[in-house]
Amino acid sequence: MTLVPEIDGERLLARLDAFARIGATPAGGVNRQAFSVEDRGARRLLAKLAMERGFAVFQDGIANLFVRREGTDATLPPLLIGSHLDSQPTGGRFDGALGTLAAFEALEALEDAKAETAMPIEVVAWSNEEGSRFAPGVMGSMAFTGSDPAAWKSSVGADGASLATELEATIAALPEAALRPIGKPISGYIELHIEQGPSLEKERLPIGVVTGVQGTRWLEVSIEGTAGHAGTTGLAYRRDPMVAAVAAMHRLQTTIMPPDSSARLTVGRIAAKPGSINAIPQSVAFTVDIRHPRMERLDAIEAELRQVCGAEAETQHCTATIKRSFDMPGAAFSPNMVKIVEAAASSLGLPHKQMISGAFHDALFLARVAPAAMIFVPCRDGLSHNEAEYVEPAYAVTGARVLLQAAIAAASPR
Amino acid sequence: MTLVPEIDGERLLARLDAFARIGATPAGGVNRQAFSVEDRGARRLLAKLAMERGFAVFQDGIANLFVRREGTDATLPPLLIGSHLDSQPTGGRFDGALGTLAAFEALEALEDAKAETAMPIEVVAWSNEEGSRFAPGVMGSMAFTGSDPAAWKSSVGADGASLATELEATIAALPEAALRPIGKPISGYIELHIEQGPSLEKERLPIGVVTGVQGTRWLEVSIEGTAGHAGTTGLAYRRDPMVAAVAAMHRLQTTIMPPDSSARLTVGRIAAKPGSINAIPQSVAFTVDIRHPRMERLDAIEAELRQVCGAEAETQHCTATIKRSFDMPGAAFSPNMVKIVEAAASSLGLPHKQMISGAFHDALFLARVAPAAMIFVPCRDGLSHNEAEYVEPAYAVTGARVLLQAAIAAASPR
Repeated sequence: MTLVPEIDGERLLARLDAFARIGATPAGGVNRQAFSVEDRGARRLLAKLAMERGFAVFQDGIANLFVRREGTDATLPPLLIGSHLDSQPTGGRFDGALGTLAAFEALEALEDAKAETAMPIEVVAWSNEEGSRFAPGVMGSMAFTGSDPAAWKSSVGADGASLATELEATIAALPEAALRPIGKPISGYIELHIEQGPSLEKERLPIGVVTGVQGTRWLEVSIEGTAGHAGTTGLAYRRDPMVAAVAAMHRLQTTIMPPDSSARLTVGRIAAKPGSINAIPQSVAFTVDIRHPRMERLDAIEAELRQVCGAEAETQHCTATIKRSFDMPGAAFSPNMVKIVEAAASSLGLPHKQMISGAFHDALFLARVAPAAMIFVPCRDGLSHNEAEYVEPAYAVTGARVLLQAAIAAASPR
Repeated sequence: MTLVPEIDGERLLARLDAFARIGATPAGGVNRQAFSVEDRGARRLLAKLAMERGFAVFQDGIANLFVRREGTDATLPPLLIGSHLDSQPTGGRFDGALGTLAAFEALEALEDAKAETAMPIEVVAWSNEEGSRFAPGVMGSMAFTGSDPAAWKSSVGADGASLATELEATIAALPEAALRPIGKPISGYIELHIEQGPSLEKERLPIGVVTGVQGTRWLEVSIEGTAGHAGTTGLAYRRDPMVAAVAAMHRLQTTIMPPDSSARLTVGRIAAKPGSINAIPQSVAFTVDIRHPRMERLDAIEAELRQVCGAEAETQHCTATIKRSFDMPGAAFSPNMVKIVEAAASSLGLPHKQMISGAFHDALFLARVAPAAMIFVPCRDGLSHNEAEYVEPAYAVTGARVLLQAAIAAASPR
């Protein structure tokens, strides 16, 4: 008789603790930046645990790490499950680590139960997801899905280190992992991650079924007017860029986000020059972060922003300059893979909702080459990229259970 | 037969040039900050010119400088005419100097014509009007009208100098000027000044008849929300202080200044913390400079600002804190003295308009103790506190002519 594969919650939580000690910060977070000594330590620990269970371990030239459990049909490409092990400099214990270790726990659960899957399943720890030490982030998944890593090799880290040197040392620190070419056919990808936002916690839902990742575009608006004395310059003689900027921001804040619930618009940075309390500014510059799952809406919002800023600047006899400084297209996940995740949550009797990820993840890139989906679990107060990041143990285990069920279903299609 | 007193335009312009050489900057402006070696040089030159004409020269304990021409009625307090000789660190050649030298030119014109006035007339150069080196500005006129200078004696300059030491050295550098107590009864005060704004130039008017000085109030608004991820934080979970700040500024910018043409509202400084392009700010702080000639309107505008900021913060589930950091009441000039200035301009056939001064001036304080008025002349592009400050020679002379006629009328009341 076959056992039913079951997540061992205690084992998963003990693993999360063990990995949290690698790069632990005094405030309870982790500093395990990409290709650092701490990052290498986490990779070595995962490889050691994998080999102890008899799984094969591989890495590729960008230091993505793979733990493979074979399936029954050698002709099928593997199903990938995982996330990342690197962290922000003052990062949390769960961002990336939960998804990677839950995936490994799922693999162990299958092994414990001697359960068979048609496809091979590989746990993956994508390299340099965070990008806080070496730009760009999501480096491992970008390379795996076709971006040329040669362009990044000259990167110098925030700490002055060379990416090429640190990458080579990271790979060399794991001689037991056989080297593979970067990228290969896969059957699908499922990633468990903490929400990094407050909605699941506020709605008391243990599971978010992620249907896609929002596209992100950054715009830098600069409005140029004429500096003047705050007292002596009458209304008729003002070219006040602050009035134009405020009017433009107000229109965007009232017309875009509330009507379109999938859109996000954030003004995070603003400055007036010269910045004197009793002077009309010469110029006002502000940033706008816009997000939307659909590219054509991002385009439409940008067009509206350009029109609104231009018109409000003109009304104040000012000029507006708008620069696009970042553009990351979103992704809609495979409806079939989303259905598999949803069915897994339902089969476990877990309340859940469909949602869009507002942050980017490795899954964004995997979705371009294979059916992909994500599972979110709540994190306290929506906090992430923060040493205070916290996930209730019950939620961590629940997330792993959904991942396991979804992986079983995805790896053995009916 | 009595000659008609007439301004000697060439003499006035030559004097302006001579004083502009004291503290001249390479860019064509002046750096003649209060109580500096350059300031002392300008005071000495004025005293020398005065004594050459046989006028008596006095100074008081705050270094206000007086040049006196006697009247026919020794029982009448003097009419004061003048301005200041100190400048901003990168100041212009006309701010203060024009009013002081035009007043001295008026005195010389009376002397040239052997014209008699009932009242004595005193040219005054108020000390430390600018306040850029030692706070507070308008120090000389404040002391003259009753403020206690003892409070300022411990002031340390932007350059590390001690006010007490520099003031003493400034007075000591002019031993030929007899020392007087600070403050004494006066019959009236008339000050010629450059507009420091664009309206006269734009309206092609050579003369502004100033009916009062706007009150100024500075408010510092801080709106506190909750920092959050720009992508993962949905609208329902945002406490976005930028949305609140923008909505509040927009309401103030649309409801206060255009409807009330005497009001000025300027947001000159703004900052969001932490100031990250992809984060909802934790807090947004901005300054509001409000000006109005009438105190009760300043109060009403401040009340509206407090209400609007509070309400918009509440809408975003944020909190607003509003601090008043500066409050200078305005002044309405004596209707009679304003009429005298207006009649002087009319008698010379000069187009003019009544206007409010948006900047503060020594006249603001003199108006509290005697009938006062001001005459404005246009300056190019409204520029002041700037080395590029420029006044057309014809306008400088025209201003002096109006000052002379007004002084004659004010000093010999019918």
